[in-house]
Amino acid sequence: MAASLRLPEAASTAGLAAVYSAGFIGLGNTGNPMAKNLMKHGYPLIVYDVFPEACKEFQDAVKKDSLLIDSGTIDPAVSKELAKEVEKMGAVFMDAPVSGGVGAARLGNLTFMVGGVEDAFAAAQELLGCMGSSLVYCGAVGTERAAKTCNNMLLAISMIGTAEAMNLGIGLGLDPKLLAKNLNMSSGRCWSSATYKPVPGVMEGVPSANDYQGGFGTTLMAKDLGLAQDSATSTKSPILLGSLAHQLYRMMCPKGYSKKDFSSVFQFLRE
Amino acid sequence: MAASLRLPEAASTAGLAAVYSAGFIGLGNTGNPMAKNLMKHGYPLIVYDVFPEACKEFQDAVKKDSLLIDSGTIDPAVSKELAKEVEKMGAVFMDAPVSGGVGAARLGNLTFMVGGVEDAFAAAQELLGCMGSSLVYCGAVGTERAAKTCNNMLLAISMIGTAEAMNLGIGLGLDPKLLAKNLNMSSGRCWSSATYKPVPGVMEGVPSANDYQGGFGTTLMAKDLGLAQDSATSTKSPILLGSLAHQLYRMMCPKGYSKKDFSSVFQFLRE
Amino acid sequence: MAASLRLPEAASTAGLAAVYSAGFIGLGNTGNPMAKNLMKHGYPLIVYDVFPEACKEFQDAVKKDSLLIDSGTIDPAVSKELAKEVEKMGAVFMDAPVSGGVGAARLGNLTFMVGGVEDAFAAAQELLGCMGSSLVYCGAVGTERAAKTCNNMLLAISMIGTAEAMNLGIGLGLDPKLLAKNLNMSSGRCWSSATYKPVPGVMEGVPSANDYQGGFGTTLMAKDLGLAQDSATSTKSPILLGSLAHQLYRMMCPKGYSKKDFSSVFQFLRE
Amino acid sequence: MAASLRLPEAASTAGLAAVYSAGFIGLGNTGNPMAKNLMKHGYPLIVYDVFPEACKEFQDAVKKDSLLIDSGTIDPAVSKELAKEVEKMGAVFMDAPVSGGVGAARLGNLTFMVGGVEDAFAAAQELLGCMGSSLVYCGAVGTERAAKTCNNMLLAISMIGTAEAMNLGIGLGLDPKLLAKNLNMSSGRCWSSATYKPVPGVMEGVPSANDYQGGFGTTLMAKDLGLAQDSATSTKSPILLGSLAHQLYRMMCPKGYSKKDFSSVFQFLRE
Repeated sequence: MAASLRLPEAASTAGLAAVYSAGFIGLGNTGNPMAKNLMKHGYPLIVYDVFPEACKEFQDAVKKDSLLIDSGTIDPAVSKELAKEVEKMGAVFMDAPVSGGVGAARLGNLTFMVGGVEDAFAAAQELLGCMGSSLVYCGAVGTERAAKTCNNMLLAISMIGTAEAMNLGIGLGLDPKLLAKNLNMSSGRCWSSATYKPVPGVMEGVPSANDYQGGFGTTLMAKDLGLAQDSATSTKSPILLGSLAHQLYRMMCPKGYSKKDFSSVFQFLRE
Repeated sequence: MAASLRLPEAASTAGLAAVYSAGFIGLGNTGNPMAKNLMKHGYPLIVYDVFPEACKEFQDAVKKDSLLIDSGTIDPAVSKELAKEVEKMGAVFMDAPVSGGVGAARLGNLTFMVGGVEDAFAAAQELLGCMGSSLVYCGAVGTERAAKTCNNMLLAISMIGTAEAMNLGIGLGLDPKLLAKNLNMSSGRCWSSATYKPVPGVMEGVPSANDYQGGFGTTLMAKDLGLAQDSATSTKSPILLGSLAHQLYRMMCPKGYSKKDFSSVFQFLRE
Repeated sequence: MAASLRLPEAASTAGLAAVYSAGFIGLGNTGNPMAKNLMKHGYPLIVYDVFPEACKEFQDAVKKDSLLIDSGTIDPAVSKELAKEVEKMGAVFMDAPVSGGVGAARLGNLTFMVGGVEDAFAAAQELLGCMGSSLVYCGAVGTERAAKTCNNMLLAISMIGTAEAMNLGIGLGLDPKLLAKNLNMSSGRCWSSATYKPVPGVMEGVPSANDYQGGFGTTLMAKDLGLAQDSATSTKSPILLGSLAHQLYRMMCPKGYSKKDFSSVFQFLRE
Repeated sequence: MAASLRLPEAASTAGLAAVYSAGFIGLGNTGNPMAKNLMKHGYPLIVYDVFPEACKEFQDAVKKDSLLIDSGTIDPAVSKELAKEVEKMGAVFMDAPVSGGVGAARLGNLTFMVGGVEDAFAAAQELLGCMGSSLVYCGAVGTERAAKTCNNMLLAISMIGTAEAMNLGIGLGLDPKLLAKNLNMSSGRCWSSATYKPVPGVMEGVPSANDYQGGFGTTLMAKDLGLAQDSATSTKSPILLGSLAHQLYRMMCPKGYSKKDFSSVFQFLRE
């Protein structure tokens, strides 16, 4: 089975990209370091970055028994269409949306949530493992998008929660570093409080240390929360905090936060 | 310096309790296994459980250079009063509210947030280490209560967030176990999603596996969120999610959830 | 210009119905008293209630220069399609969604929000005035649906707000009747507090006086708030209270409130 | 029975003020036009505006069978203390907090919520009727403060709701004037939408027409919502929207809205 992989032009665009034994499509901010990591692991790459050629090339390249992996942030409906087309050609399609940002792409620390036939997961792990440290099998094609939506909603909630708790503590006279340490040794601990501290001056190398540049933008988070909102409305699932998180990020966008990292909600609460 | 310790009658009551080289006050649900853990470590205990005697004994026992540690969930104002009294007697007072519930008390896994003079923290660690695995120094007396308030607010927010994300995912057709695994390998990971899963059938040995019996009650969480609310109002700190979490737990109390563990918010959203 | 009118089978279904000089389609809970009110004003009616015949008849009936008014709660897209079809036939189409429930239908007190060519509004007023007391011109076809969405969102918010304020006041020891009087003489006054009091025992002839039977169901309100949510997401408009109102009604549905009037949110908060 | 009246220096300060057959204490922004209105109705006034003298004069003036009315926004606890003192002197105390702002004070359109012995309400009406158009009897001393808290919470909720609905409608392409008209002819109607329109350009003579100057400040609304929050926490009443409204106004204060009228929430959502 030849392994092929399509990767995102940039995490923020619905890029179509593909890697195959000798091919990789999409060389945006995220795709670039991803391709380099693949090459480090000995995969010879022919690289494409322009959309129309990518599509054409994609059809020529695709052979029976190929494994095609899509990591672009494309529309779930497009994803399902692609799966059908690929299956007609006798190849296997997996969908593997990526999270983690440019920094994680460089370090090969990306997270891939993978949807597709379970039998093909081992092969996908081989390729994706060159670029990411967390590979999670979610179920049939489509489940990985749903899982990402749920994850990002919880991420937004716990980030805002962390920002509120830190801001309240500072207001009560607590030292931010000691409070952060406290939360992370206790039941308040979450990814946002532990590895992505939103309060400037508490941790090096995170967006809060750099005026909230880089990272995962507020606009993108608002967009993902819009997907969660739509899913919740269509499945009639109550999401009280998720919905409020959506509105908060929505509100921040036109107030100068649209391009800042989503941890800047701390600044928004505090300013 | 003789080491003395006051411990809670029960986590849910403003119990006054004390352990000293040979004394421990308070033998409620939480205090009982705590005392046993101290004895295991070779501390001879004289145990008191009735409040008036406890207070009298407390004054007799207290000697110059004693270390007195209060782990009861008493009023911060009372705590500060006690600190003054103890200092007048030439002894050292530390405040160390406990979290973790009865199960953690049995396993010696409690968390203590400690406030007081930093010099005395090493001595406190020796005693508290017999009963807890996480000992966090927060600053002067009072800071540990503020830190606990912030922590519990973040805990409530991330628990409700976890419940909403899991419920939404289930509504979208995801397998709860796979989704939980997903969240915990990704940026949505938090203490609630990782070690205290609120969805029945996903994890053994947690309240959700036992009809939400045991653990940390909804009423207690609503009470702690009330403290967060008061602190936020007095310091003029916005807590949008914290405030909504407060109202949700408040709303659950009279609907049959008052004595259930606070992870039952999943059931409340789902029923 | 011949006047024609299509009316809802029932407010809760996407009924297609039509009245024309001698025709009325749709005789559900709401349509029935509406038709009677038209007859009282001297309009001879031929009445249809079955959907396929209605559609066929509709096409035969429609003449050049007819005015066709749609008051069914149909999909806005269908509404726009109909407008085009009708215009092709040389007739005029107006969209006039109705609000007010069965009681208002009987009393001829319905509210119609009307979208279409402004020139035709006078003619529409003549017919609709037999059945409703509030006729509001909103603009081109489509605006009336948007206006209704905005109105119903504000309605939900002020109803929940009324319920919260009344419940809080009762908790503080106030007499519900005096408090309701107070609010209505003051700046808290709103339609929900003034004419649709959600607290049982304060007013006669409203759903709260009859175990929240009749009126406008919780499920329908949740559905309308879903439309508001979708509109807000697509226009990137923050709706913090609207969104929370949506989640609250969403949450109430499976808890025994799905068929109760939406003022039962008071009971939900209080129980 | 001699009628006496204490009025606020300014609605925004905890002023102590008094009018008696010949005396009025407190000549701030609100007190000034109030005193003038009393004089127009033939009450001879001796006016005091400095606090210490006011208090001294107050005690000398007070005679058996006097009626003393307090309209300052003082602490409820002080209000109850005063009631006791006054009763000891054989006089009658009523508490009548005022709402409506400077404009209403000039027009004699203020609203007074009155607490005290019901027998004395008729006498109070005589005096207060010179300055206000809405006089509401609430019950024993203390109930009027509780009622005001409930009213202002509902006011905040419906103002934010109005702002959200108008902003959403504008986003959907509706004309603001037509939409406002629509809401006010329909079930979304509330005091905020009808008489205090928050969208600039829709109505003359309201704060939104004057860059949100004048009116009822955001800081004051946040303070009142803090009182509602405290009451809700102490009575364990869930106030989901009230609580979120509190946090929103809290958040607006440090962002340049502290001195703007509370209808500026429209601008905050829109900017």
